[in-house]
Amino acid sequence: MKPLLVILMGSQADRKQADAVAEAARPMGMDVKMHIGSAHKTATHVLNLLKMYESDPRPKVYVTIAGRSNALSGFTDGAVISPVIACPPIPEKFGGADIFSSLSMPSGIAPAVVLDPANAALLAAKIFALSDPDIREAVKEFQDSARQKILDDDTALNVEG
Amino acid sequence: MKPLLVILMGSQADRKQADAVAEAARPMGMDVKMHIGSAHKTATHVLNLLKMYESDPRPKVYVTIAGRSNALSGFTDGAVISPVIACPPIPEKFGGADIFSSLSMPSGIAPAVVLDPANAALLAAKIFALSDPDIREAVKEFQDSARQKILDDDTALNVEG
Amino acid sequence: MKPLLVILMGSQADRKQADAVAEAARPMGMDVKMHIGSAHKTATHVLNLLKMYESDPRPKVYVTIAGRSNALSGFTDGAVISPVIACPPIPEKFGGADIFSSLSMPSGIAPAVVLDPANAALLAAKIFALSDPDIREAVKEFQDSARQKILDDDTALNVEG
Amino acid sequence: MKPLLVILMGSQADRKQADAVAEAARPMGMDVKMHIGSAHKTATHVLNLLKMYESDPRPKVYVTIAGRSNALSGFTDGAVISPVIACPPIPEKFGGADIFSSLSMPSGIAPAVVLDPANAALLAAKIFALSDPDIREAVKEFQDSARQKILDDDTALNVEG
Amino acid sequence: MKPLLVILMGSQADRKQADAVAEAARPMGMDVKMHIGSAHKTATHVLNLLKMYESDPRPKVYVTIAGRSNALSGFTDGAVISPVIACPPIPEKFGGADIFSSLSMPSGIAPAVVLDPANAALLAAKIFALSDPDIREAVKEFQDSARQKILDDDTALNVEG
Amino acid sequence: MKPLLVILMGSQADRKQADAVAEAARPMGMDVKMHIGSAHKTATHVLNLLKMYESDPRPKVYVTIAGRSNALSGFTDGAVISPVIACPPIPEKFGGADIFSSLSMPSGIAPAVVLDPANAALLAAKIFALSDPDIREAVKEFQDSARQKILDDDTALNVEG
Amino acid sequence: MKPLLVILMGSQADRKQADAVAEAARPMGMDVKMHIGSAHKTATHVLNLLKMYESDPRPKVYVTIAGRSNALSGFTDGAVISPVIACPPIPEKFGGADIFSSLSMPSGIAPAVVLDPANAALLAAKIFALSDPDIREAVKEFQDSARQKILDDDTALNVEG
Amino acid sequence: MKPLLVILMGSQADRKQADAVAEAARPMGMDVKMHIGSAHKTATHVLNLLKMYESDPRPKVYVTIAGRSNALSGFTDGAVISPVIACPPIPEKFGGADIFSSLSMPSGIAPAVVLDPANAALLAAKIFALSDPDIREAVKEFQDSARQKILDDDTALNVEG
Repeated sequence: MKPLLVILMGSQADRKQADAVAEAARPMGMDVKMHIGSAHKTATHVLNLLKMYESDPRPKVYVTIAGRSNALSGFTDGAVISPVIACPPIPEKFGGADIFSSLSMPSGIAPAVVLDPANAALLAAKIFALSDPDIREAVKEFQDSARQKILDDDTALNVEG
Repeated sequence: MKPLLVILMGSQADRKQADAVAEAARPMGMDVKMHIGSAHKTATHVLNLLKMYESDPRPKVYVTIAGRSNALSGFTDGAVISPVIACPPIPEKFGGADIFSSLSMPSGIAPAVVLDPANAALLAAKIFALSDPDIREAVKEFQDSARQKILDDDTALNVEG
Repeated sequence: MKPLLVILMGSQADRKQADAVAEAARPMGMDVKMHIGSAHKTATHVLNLLKMYESDPRPKVYVTIAGRSNALSGFTDGAVISPVIACPPIPEKFGGADIFSSLSMPSGIAPAVVLDPANAALLAAKIFALSDPDIREAVKEFQDSARQKILDDDTALNVEG
Repeated sequence: MKPLLVILMGSQADRKQADAVAEAARPMGMDVKMHIGSAHKTATHVLNLLKMYESDPRPKVYVTIAGRSNALSGFTDGAVISPVIACPPIPEKFGGADIFSSLSMPSGIAPAVVLDPANAALLAAKIFALSDPDIREAVKEFQDSARQKILDDDTALNVEG
Repeated sequence: MKPLLVILMGSQADRKQADAVAEAARPMGMDVKMHIGSAHKTATHVLNLLKMYESDPRPKVYVTIAGRSNALSGFTDGAVISPVIACPPIPEKFGGADIFSSLSMPSGIAPAVVLDPANAALLAAKIFALSDPDIREAVKEFQDSARQKILDDDTALNVEG
Repeated sequence: MKPLLVILMGSQADRKQADAVAEAARPMGMDVKMHIGSAHKTATHVLNLLKMYESDPRPKVYVTIAGRSNALSGFTDGAVISPVIACPPIPEKFGGADIFSSLSMPSGIAPAVVLDPANAALLAAKIFALSDPDIREAVKEFQDSARQKILDDDTALNVEG
Repeated sequence: MKPLLVILMGSQADRKQADAVAEAARPMGMDVKMHIGSAHKTATHVLNLLKMYESDPRPKVYVTIAGRSNALSGFTDGAVISPVIACPPIPEKFGGADIFSSLSMPSGIAPAVVLDPANAALLAAKIFALSDPDIREAVKEFQDSARQKILDDDTALNVEG
Repeated sequence: MKPLLVILMGSQADRKQADAVAEAARPMGMDVKMHIGSAHKTATHVLNLLKMYESDPRPKVYVTIAGRSNALSGFTDGAVISPVIACPPIPEKFGGADIFSSLSMPSGIAPAVVLDPANAALLAAKIFALSDPDIREAVKEFQDSARQKILDDDTALNVEG
């Protein structure tokens, strides 16, 4: 039984960011489910989805993806016991100030903010790895390979130069 | 039958801002009701409150007050037909970037952002004034008095100088 | 007798934003009038326009559109009893800091700031809906359709995946 | 006949900044007049004041002082032929973003932005100095004295150390 | 065997923030260990600490606390398999821009950013709750109590008013 | 004898901005001279240029154009009695923060900051207009024509619509 | 024996910036070595490289190049006695706020921040010039040529115009 | 013969920052000279000072301290062959944007920006250490002591706790 990553988008427009999370998550050994739901417009729909997943016995992490003012991440975090990772698209307007709608949370609302979608998947893997030896091994391999890539790049640079 | 201003705070900590709105609103001829409810933590409670007020036949405007990441204003706006005025406390941290959590709304979510609590009450009065001659008169008097204040200050300055 | 949305632009350059407001407003049942007038350069012209519209008995909302330093919204708000919605084009330079020229209003000046032009039209509709059952119905249909779009997108995503 | 510095404040709250300009301006040989008038709330009053001063034959510079969203400077500049110096109080909120309401002017509106009130008076003096030999001499003395202050401070520092 | 929260501070100056995390974490059922170590000045010391904790069989979450340019969080995250929560003190200077040193991570480095220290402890609890029923219960109780607090505040407000 | 506008660029790269000032200035009746000189790299060259122009009996305004950290405007202002207009190219990087290198002047240094090059020329014209009736007339015509353009645009819009 | 410039990149992606430093440094008389190493992912590799170079008897300056959150510059500075120049690529996102990860250093960590890669090479040359007469001569020639370029541009402009 | 640190302040107001640099520099084995001179107001005085110091045969580093728009650092850097460290006081207004007047240098102007005054002294020491074994030893001792402080703090924390 693989652990479950539930990716929740605020709208269809966030699909690309959600796919980037999913593509990084699946090879590390998670099942991935994706949903679209707006905390602003379809709050009840989102609450129903969350209730359904919370009753699923598998270990779960939620990744919430919402541009502009991100209500979805805090809304989700307040409704579930499982951890929530807020992974909003990097905002272009107003010097990127929308990121603070993911960060400035009230007491008792604690989504983990991670900017890069592949890093969001990695954080989810690190969380599942606490109790899942296969995912622990996958994280280890991922990190080793990232380190080796740098060592190889350094070697290549100095052979070349 | 006076029109109704429903002031919704995200937490007890927003009470001072809410009182400032209420104190400016009452003399202009509105009934004021205040509530505390968090879109993050008590979404269902907020939805129930909104449903109750939406079924009230009086003309209504909502004022939503929430610091940090303001989910409450958009959440309220998506759930009601009446207009919503977002009046968050002016944020101190991060160059005030939290204000963009009130401004950066997705399509179909349209709270009116007003920074000053007395101005939020004035906007509510202008909205009610479209169909309420008493409030229309109150707005007119308020504006005339604000204008006269400036003319008097100018006269005093030049008599003095 | 339909209610009236008066869209006031600071210059010909704001036409595109004005059209976006108008296109969203008309299907919701408002009459739309558009004008060009600068608070900086043609203050008397703007005051005359506003006086003319204020004497029109129809319910009215003003939408003011002015880039760079937005004097037009506050100038209009101080001259009329009807509500004013400031809908400036999203500024590109200086991290979008021009938006604060729409927000930082003195006491007694209370335009509603809304960033998205279609959302500005929606706010106007919500305001008129307080006393106009047809527009109330239009807002309700608009919101229901926006909600249904999200539910359909979620269903399609999960049928597909 | 001394040239004339007209200081225009947006409200009584700007009095301190206006006094700082006046105190620096008078010793340099200008007559100073102060007024209070809001472009938002008392546009006609401001236009009347400007018309009155524009018909005064003396050389004139206007200094406009308005906090928050500064409509007054551009509004004044568009209504007069004489130069306008915008000298808003340095804004505290939102990282000082209100300063852009003084800077981001449309074509044909050209107030000179100067942050420090004594510097605003100096710029006015430099402008009058183009045609007024007494003020020219005052500017020269002011600059010489500022330079000497630095040379003296450097000497004192090295005598001391 | 309780799970372990390792709080790593960049310097003695971060002690207050570390204590705030610890005080929120202990009642939820975690063991807490605190350390001081600088990624800039004592990299080897930090690597040794991390190696020691990584060989401890208990489930672990790291909380890293470092002001100014936060190298510690990414440095820790790259060296461990367990999840890392970056909880820097909210920066005062430069509009709080130091927060981006916690957020702008390269590929393969995925600390969870959480601003509030009690929220950092809550996120750690949510992570441990995936495999620890006692902590799961503690999270549930914490959330229920936070919700009830709001409902009670709302009731008190309306009884009073 | 026409008054003289001296445009000083920090480098060849500022030529386009300088030309935009010149093109707007010449039709208003000023003579224009352009120079390149860096306060950082060729301070003595700039001081010599300024000494030469200061001894020219014609009324003069300087326009200083320098990107990145603008030392040139303050450096020029401290060395001349005539007014200086800082007209830096609008900066792209770091949210345009370079503009503050033009604004944040010490006591006794008072360049007029104007963002738009044509507006910088207009401010120079307004300054010269204090003592030059031809330029006064040119400013008046320019302003009248700018006003008429708006009135015509408004008429065209409403004939069309 | 030429002095040595060690350019350290956080990843292969920083190669272009590193090459720009190297191209400006070599003609001034430095030997250049380039390496890739991440303080986050390969801390031990970087420490080993630094230990190797620190034992090299030649005078050395390090240039560290790392985008996003720059841990590399402070990490290097804490591990070496030689001076470190942080030359991060100019950041595009979030109004360039990542630059503060290079600037906001704790006590005892003192990299020199220089934005332009050719300027970073120039600073290295100025440092080596303190004890190396050839490089001193190269700096002098570079500065003279930069000055002459401006004088020539000014002459060309005025011959042309 | 000790190497020489020349601290140049823009005005008497920068004395505190200059003293902090000097107090950290002297124990590391540098001679310190302090001067006051404004690039804006007393350019010739500054150029004369720099010419005098440049003809001194001792190794030299300049530290330039100027608040608001920092012209002094670039102005100094362009006039000397020795390295220049810009150490402006951390700016309070406008989100600290004045720091960019120290960073945004044109080609050929390369001051090293360091925020903390003690760190500026440390960088100067690292530069002198390239050719001065006594200062090299002082830097080593300083770094060792900073490292030991952290190790001791960590030990104390864990003995205590």
